[in-house]
Amino acid sequence: MSTDRLSALTRQHRPLLHQALGVLRSREHWSPYPEDPDDPVAYRDQDAAEGERAFQRLLDTPFDLDQPGRDGTVGPSPEEGGEVSPYGFPLGIAYPHCDPAALLAAQRAAMAGWRTATPLERAAVCAEILARINARSHEFARAATHTSGHGPVMAFHAGAVHAQDRGLEAVALGYAEQTRLPAEFTWRKPLPGGRLFALDKTFTVVPRGISLLIANAVFPAWNGYPGLFASLVTGNAVVVKPHPRAVLPLALTVRVAREVLRETGFAPDLVCLAAERPGEQLAKRLAVHPDVRIIDYAGSGTFASWLTAHAPQARVHTAASAVNSVLLHSTSRYRDMLANLAFTLALYSGQLCTSPQNIVVPRTGIATDEGHKSYDGVVADLGAALDTLLADDERAAAVLGALYAPHVLRSVRTANSGHLGPVAHPSRAVTHPRHPRAVIRTPVLVSLDAGRTADRVTLMTEWPGPVAFAVAVDSTEAGIDLIRRTAREQGALSAGAHTTDPHVERALVDACADSGVTLSLNLTGDWYLTQSAVYSDLHGTGLNPSGNSTYGDASFVTGRFRTVAVRRAADAA
Amino acid sequence: MSTDRLSALTRQHRPLLHQALGVLRSREHWSPYPEDPDDPVAYRDQDAAEGERAFQRLLDTPFDLDQPGRDGTVGPSPEEGGEVSPYGFPLGIAYPHCDPAALLAAQRAAMAGWRTATPLERAAVCAEILARINARSHEFARAATHTSGHGPVMAFHAGAVHAQDRGLEAVALGYAEQTRLPAEFTWRKPLPGGRLFALDKTFTVVPRGISLLIANAVFPAWNGYPGLFASLVTGNAVVVKPHPRAVLPLALTVRVAREVLRETGFAPDLVCLAAERPGEQLAKRLAVHPDVRIIDYAGSGTFASWLTAHAPQARVHTAASAVNSVLLHSTSRYRDMLANLAFTLALYSGQLCTSPQNIVVPRTGIATDEGHKSYDGVVADLGAALDTLLADDERAAAVLGALYAPHVLRSVRTANSGHLGPVAHPSRAVTHPRHPRAVIRTPVLVSLDAGRTADRVTLMTEWPGPVAFAVAVDSTEAGIDLIRRTAREQGALSAGAHTTDPHVERALVDACADSGVTLSLNLTGDWYLTQSAVYSDLHGTGLNPSGNSTYGDASFVTGRFRTVAVRRAADAA
Repeated sequence: MSTDRLSALTRQHRPLLHQALGVLRSREHWSPYPEDPDDPVAYRDQDAAEGERAFQRLLDTPFDLDQPGRDGTVGPSPEEGGEVSPYGFPLGIAYPHCDPAALLAAQRAAMAGWRTATPLERAAVCAEILARINARSHEFARAATHTSGHGPVMAFHAGAVHAQDRGLEAVALGYAEQTRLPAEFTWRKPLPGGRLFALDKTFTVVPRGISLLIANAVFPAWNGYPGLFASLVTGNAVVVKPHPRAVLPLALTVRVAREVLRETGFAPDLVCLAAERPGEQLAKRLAVHPDVRIIDYAGSGTFASWLTAHAPQARVHTAASAVNSVLLHSTSRYRDMLANLAFTLALYSGQLCTSPQNIVVPRTGIATDEGHKSYDGVVADLGAALDTLLADDERAAAVLGALYAPHVLRSVRTANSGHLGPVAHPSRAVTHPRHPRAVIRTPVLVSLDAGRTADRVTLMTEWPGPVAFAVAVDSTEAGIDLIRRTAREQGALSAGAHTTDPHVERALVDACADSGVTLSLNLTGDWYLTQSAVYSDLHGTGLNPSGNSTYGDASFVTGRFRTVAVRRAADAA
Repeated sequence: MSTDRLSALTRQHRPLLHQALGVLRSREHWSPYPEDPDDPVAYRDQDAAEGERAFQRLLDTPFDLDQPGRDGTVGPSPEEGGEVSPYGFPLGIAYPHCDPAALLAAQRAAMAGWRTATPLERAAVCAEILARINARSHEFARAATHTSGHGPVMAFHAGAVHAQDRGLEAVALGYAEQTRLPAEFTWRKPLPGGRLFALDKTFTVVPRGISLLIANAVFPAWNGYPGLFASLVTGNAVVVKPHPRAVLPLALTVRVAREVLRETGFAPDLVCLAAERPGEQLAKRLAVHPDVRIIDYAGSGTFASWLTAHAPQARVHTAASAVNSVLLHSTSRYRDMLANLAFTLALYSGQLCTSPQNIVVPRTGIATDEGHKSYDGVVADLGAALDTLLADDERAAAVLGALYAPHVLRSVRTANSGHLGPVAHPSRAVTHPRHPRAVIRTPVLVSLDAGRTADRVTLMTEWPGPVAFAVAVDSTEAGIDLIRRTAREQGALSAGAHTTDPHVERALVDACADSGVTLSLNLTGDWYLTQSAVYSDLHGTGLNPSGNSTYGDASFVTGRFRTVAVRRAADAA
């Protein structure tokens, strides 16, 4: 084992881990991974141009990954499972396909050495993996762009640095939880008659087993790193099953992880990629394997339920679908509110799990610093704010990114057709300046009435992509009740509101506590409902159908390992 | 709300809670609840004689418990579900039976006020409940004796003070986990251009819902208090479904809890007793109710699996069956080892979940300070140690307690008949000096050979009560392997060994880490394999079929509540 390398890394990353732990208590703003793509220190080895070149070198070649049990290839052609960029070209990458039985056998064997490392050593190895990924953030951002369809800022943030933040957050939490108990101590108990009985005790962390990551296509890194690093730092092996549309970001991740593990004297097979052939149903096959003891899944509610029912041997963490709402009640900054809301709807074409769908507005209108605004007036003004934001195609394309999958385009078309309700503001196609085949659409705004049964069915359904409903409600109370019911029945990850009335605020706070939704109030300017500040904001509550887990919470890591004790007779002091 | 009473209790119990939190880190010996039944301070209001009188007053009367939805009675006659003391007389207590739907409806309503209390207030209320139970420990001990069949020391410890310890441990853990995050703070992020963006954030604890405790008959308090108090302190309501043989300890507990809740201005229905009519299958009916979001169960592996499969809406914590082993390899204190082991086998008739069943001995014998001892010699000497310990009926009855249920007696009879293997040391009936109808049996020791298939099936099965097997193995390695396999396949909560060889010790430590079992080495004198020191020892690992949960571990409380955030636009400082 390369113990010199390992102890050097442990010394190097220990201060960072302790800094992360401090921030996890204070919840203040912090990140070791600069958000500025032009940061001259962090990205000195790979700037934007070099990141683009590195990405180009990946295209149309076999992806080099030395894993056991190789029995074929996934890709390069789309028919063989190769990825196609949402910006309109096939990536042409061929990934190794490996026999799942061979992968799991190699992972079982790999765990022996990893388990005996200290929690700090494992955390340092994880921090080094993240540091190397961070140094290549431009390359990872390009990979995110051409798999998930992110625009450039979204790709550099959610596809790279913020995902790294979520990863390090999980590492720090896992390190802290594993070191709660003393590794060894002597327990002394006074006995009747003044004698002292003593036992030498040790506590040893034991991982649960193999951890399966079933990743999604929209944010494979941001939704994937929490589970990957939480399981890895707690001593488990991790098999990564990427979404067929977004293999590259996780293939790069797995390759870096294997490289660092190898260099530090551990078995690289602790982290393996399980790329999937078309129709292989690999997620289901892996999920029910008796050696798979942890599952992290981000995707549909249907498959989340399937996993919970069919993989009782595993601890299943899910992040599933959400129907998010915003209530407009009153504001002292009407124009800023509209601009903020328009950006929120447009950002990555509303494809974030925290993007709002239902804009709830009392049919009597709202009070603003520009006087009373009618329901129709608010809807028209929001449409105008979208037009202002997205007037220029180049800027619009950067904010919107591309639709990542055909079913998202179908969702937009249905809403734009008027079948769901009157189109208050139509979607339009945007032409990307350099990728004319990219599928890009502006948000469509449809008017619905919560008093109509058909409209209630529509708004209580998740419509992926840039589809928003302006929902007229009879009263503020009815609006709050609708938001609560939607979260409880359909799941929600975020709720927003604009109100200057403390009573309305109080009622909203209660409704969101009841239904387990993060509430954002009166956001204007440079922060948006969809955003989640790692180390400060928790993501998900597990209290509604949007999932059972919370990134950043102790409960996300505590079940991934257990503690086994040894008690030895000792001579009392 | 009696806020004065509540703030007084909060001030009073806060130092205790913080002391508990300190000990949970240091794991040193500590308890606020004296083990000495004659402690003049703790038990000044109720000494042993007064405890006995209080118990006698409970007999042959209706149990007073003012709960909603009352629709009948459980007991007093055994045919109607009334309890019968293992010491040979019916308790004659009639418990109220309540409509489960009414209980759950009352609990839903009760949670609103409880949720808005602070974590410290909830913890203080829980600590007060435990303090009042502690003051009545003699009465609780008598209730344990005449439901579970404990002897006097076991009843006062596991039936009273140690159960209270497990309860306070859960309260302290729950308090700590709920206060990890700041209740409110301002988050500030520097923006490009030197501006500062700010959000005021709050974190609020939200309970999962109603928590169901399905208790066992052997240690309803010790196995029940962890889940009860972990759920209550984290804001949930708790419905307590006692085992039909052991209602009284939990009925008393529920009554105290309701009394304290009422006095502090909370709804008493936060804690309800769901006593069960014969054949009612109340545990199953409650477990699948959509409002039941947490389940704590102690009992059979079969029902634990049923719950996991049929109650996916709930977080299910299980403590199930165990087949525990001791390896005898070598010792420098042969006589002390035998005496310790004999006591361990006899204590509460081997009915503890940590009682050993398989005494694994190499067929070539073991090395001792008295020279080499053959397998037959060791078995004979262990039998003699049992005889010495249990020679006197009165002392034997105190150590053994009574068999708590007919199936335990059947288990002893089967082993004693020679059907399982040669009886190396037979069980005998013990006559209790004051309860001639008590069913009391000394341990039976049966010789088995791990090389024989039929014997392996026998030893890999859980035999309740005072049934122990002296298992001959080919080698020490084979013995360690058997212990590992038994734990992995059948579940185990404790493993013991006597060895002076560091290599054997190392192999045992690895085997127990692999199979998730607490290992106790070379215990002699005043501490026994079966014992678990609250605040120091964890109980259970969740790594083998003996259950999925660990008392004393953060993972036991973290999933019982969630955190919901509110983010408000703030003016940057």
